[in-house]
Amino acid sequence: MNWQDILAGLAPNNTRAIARGISLIENEQEGYALLLEALPSNDKTLVLGITGPPGAGKSSLTDALIAELVKQQQSVAVLCVDPSSPFHRGALLGDRIRMSQWYNHPNVYIRSLATRGALGGLHPKTIEIADFVKAAGFDCVIIETVGVGQTELEIAGLADVTTVVLVPEAGDDVQAMKSGLMEIAQVFAVNKSDRPGADLFANHLRASVNELAAGKDIAIVKTSAINREGIAALWTAIRERQQNHTAQQHKSALLAEKAWQIIGQRRMKNLDIDRLRKEIEVAMQDPGFNFYKLVASLQ
Amino acid sequence: MNWQDILAGLAPNNTRAIARGISLIENEQEGYALLLEALPSNDKTLVLGITGPPGAGKSSLTDALIAELVKQQQSVAVLCVDPSSPFHRGALLGDRIRMSQWYNHPNVYIRSLATRGALGGLHPKTIEIADFVKAAGFDCVIIETVGVGQTELEIAGLADVTTVVLVPEAGDDVQAMKSGLMEIAQVFAVNKSDRPGADLFANHLRASVNELAAGKDIAIVKTSAINREGIAALWTAIRERQQNHTAQQHKSALLAEKAWQIIGQRRMKNLDIDRLRKEIEVAMQDPGFNFYKLVASLQ
Repeated sequence: MNWQDILAGLAPNNTRAIARGISLIENEQEGYALLLEALPSNDKTLVLGITGPPGAGKSSLTDALIAELVKQQQSVAVLCVDPSSPFHRGALLGDRIRMSQWYNHPNVYIRSLATRGALGGLHPKTIEIADFVKAAGFDCVIIETVGVGQTELEIAGLADVTTVVLVPEAGDDVQAMKSGLMEIAQVFAVNKSDRPGADLFANHLRASVNELAAGKDIAIVKTSAINREGIAALWTAIRERQQNHTAQQHKSALLAEKAWQIIGQRRMKNLDIDRLRKEIEVAMQDPGFNFYKLVASLQ
Repeated sequence: MNWQDILAGLAPNNTRAIARGISLIENEQEGYALLLEALPSNDKTLVLGITGPPGAGKSSLTDALIAELVKQQQSVAVLCVDPSSPFHRGALLGDRIRMSQWYNHPNVYIRSLATRGALGGLHPKTIEIADFVKAAGFDCVIIETVGVGQTELEIAGLADVTTVVLVPEAGDDVQAMKSGLMEIAQVFAVNKSDRPGADLFANHLRASVNELAAGKDIAIVKTSAINREGIAALWTAIRERQQNHTAQQHKSALLAEKAWQIIGQRRMKNLDIDRLRKEIEVAMQDPGFNFYKLVASLQ
């Protein structure tokens, strides 16, 4: 299956073409750049970023959103982007167990991407793979990743709408990062909202939004993914915010962010940590070894 | 104060020389590279990474550790590394309120570093600044940062010992990332251990350590930072693990990680997102605009 065949067969229910295309892009096989340049543009698909700290219930919420979309007879692709280790350069997670019930559903496509040593938190080809899957014409492409910090910011750079999942306990650090969260979130899901303190937390969040992001239309939706509560309201809030993000100005910012990341990955590509380690081990034999002198000499 | 003066005056209680040196490195002012190459080596100082997800209580725990070190008449420097936004490229946090009681203590130096647009989660000069502060001869340098994922992995690359702070609620995601956490943590602090489920969570964590990191000496310490419980035990566990990390093999891996990050930052340095955005805005005027063709043409 060459890149032309992949392109010709691209459709939400053609899992073989999608899987083959992702592999082509991942491994930079012949034709991958041509495939990317030839992708049809598609304004229908909503690219949704779901992120938040560990323990917030992102997988459960994604699972609940899949159920909601399936109920509405929409097609959905989910890319689970998992952090990996710079030491072993291997994947950290396999597929998420909770979502496995959807693997054979005709309207659902799920794929895990490990980061494999990218300098940033996302898989080095996440942007390209998301664009490719989007071009297949799904109603919604969900990109789900753990992490608060850089990974989250990267996701905001490639999604039309970003949902940040928080739990009532997140208090302290959310307080500290709230202005950053306001920048990336169009929707906050206050998950595990059956827990004590959920209303108080949501109210504080609302006050912060009013204070720090007065002009921005940020929704706060209380959910309980496990109990399937608030999911339809969450989906409605997400859809409503899709419109805001087609403005030309936002689009160029989003593309600049994507370009920045793609170029960054390209620049980092041949920096091999194992080779560096060997060079350092040799240099350390020298009694006059000086780390900063060595680094200055390396490219 | 030139770099030679900074070097000559370098001592834990000379906050002026330390602050000046950090600025010199941050802003790549004249002599910063020479200063780094001239830093005295120092095997006494323990560089401690403290990381974990939002809401785990890292700041409180750092605060409690400072109190413990001060009680033991040790000197400590704390670098608070805060994520910032690639959109605004500004700092997200100011100084942490909780630690402010220590600002004028002669044995304590505290500094916040914002990331300012690094591709990775840490401030682009975190490694160099940590090495510089270490050379001042503090008994302990604590690098504290929020985030699970890349930032955490970066911290593990520059610390002698990394403590991952978790709370009993972290269940799901910890389950998913546990093999990754085992790689970076020498010590787990199960904080807020007065909460229900703390013992169960600690036992599960212990079982995971035994299963996934059988040969590794990983401590699990229950703490309650707010109530100042378990802090002395945590410090003891950290000190005990310092020894394991002076082995030559670990040292070259650590230096390779540091070199990889420094070179990465250098390669990314002149990639300006605002310039990219302007180029994209011009290119978008063209009806034949193709994002991937444009990106392929950019350096």
